Amino acid sequence: MKLLEQKIITEGKVRPGDVLKVDCFLNHQMDVDFLCQLGEEFHRLYADCGVNKILTIEASGIGIACLTAQFFHCPVLFAKKAKTSNLSDKLWASKVHSYTHNTDHDVIVAKKFLGEGDRVLIIDDFLANGSALNALLDLCRQAGATVVGAGIVIEKAYQPGGEVIRRRGIRVESLARIASMSVEDGIQFC
Amino acid sequence: MKLLEQKIITEGKVRPGDVLKVDCFLNHQMDVDFLCQLGEEFHRLYADCGVNKILTIEASGIGIACLTAQFFHCPVLFAKKAKTSNLSDKLWASKVHSYTHNTDHDVIVAKKFLGEGDRVLIIDDFLANGSALNALLDLCRQAGATVVGAGIVIEKAYQPGGEVIRRRGIRVESLARIASMSVEDGIQFC
Repeated sequence: MKLLEQKIITEGKVRPGDVLKVDCFLNHQMDVDFLCQLGEEFHRLYADCGVNKILTIEASGIGIACLTAQFFHCPVLFAKKAKTSNLSDKLWASKVHSYTHNTDHDVIVAKKFLGEGDRVLIIDDFLANGSALNALLDLCRQAGATVVGAGIVIEKAYQPGGEVIRRRGIRVESLARIASMSVEDGIQFC
Repeated sequence: MKLLEQKIITEGKVRPGDVLKVDCFLNHQMDVDFLCQLGEEFHRLYADCGVNKILTIEASGIGIACLTAQFFHCPVLFAKKAKTSNLSDKLWASKVHSYTHNTDHDVIVAKKFLGEGDRVLIIDDFLANGSALNALLDLCRQAGATVVGAGIVIEKAYQPGGEVIRRRGIRVESLARIASMSVEDGIQFC
């Protein structure tokens, strides 16, 4: 999506350690009018898929998920980071590995909100190694829900997450796919 | 707001320990079409206040803040829970006390996104003891930003937070104000 690529070029910053800072419009301050246009694009891509629920993960997926959901007229369900190790039998749970902090944590959704009748679109802001997306897919698998696909704002396509998940036959649509980036040479898109 | 009161009565559940569960439409699963109507109401209340930024706190405030912001055509900034005690001088920071867990944690926003030119509407899902709202007000005070008011979805009006903050001269608009609630007698609104 050209509009998004231009926004990343003009407002994003590449930092050492493979960090792309887009906190001015995506994941700290959110340019809501702009994100609405991304939501509309996700709707265009998945309009005929019978989506009845959007699944995301706290915190930075929630905004784009809500702004997308209004085009589908469906609810959003966000997976929460579990605060304790006391996981109830009323919850679906899966593990997310954080490569930044080298830790694992559980993410949970209430079983009553995700089940066999659901046709789920997964929305998230970033896809890199695929850890968060894999956990959301795992929650849907446990629940018996159908995943129609994933909608990602920015994919670091030089990391393996997206490729591995697509090879499993899951549709992944990323609005911007970064082929490479560095502080010296900036950002190249696929 | 009658529509919200009806929704709370029909879909909310009162649980022991002063818990109102509204996770079916507000803070886990989100009924986005319904929340849009609340956003429209916040806009009606604050339309003439020159709002140029909406401030909220992760995670459950983000959805309603984004759905409200599109009526104002302004960005959302969400305060993040600080993961470490290493607070940089590029951040405004304030403490939130959790009465549920009896712990304090820091919430932060980047200084570059909140400053003297801003006219801020604070949006959150709940107001009870006022701890989160006080932290957001404190961030705005440090930044020199003007707070035009707060928009709250559900206020537990029998707890002191809202009253104390209004007495400081801050406008607080809550779309549903609960006068009392209990498992036995259900919910009474103000």
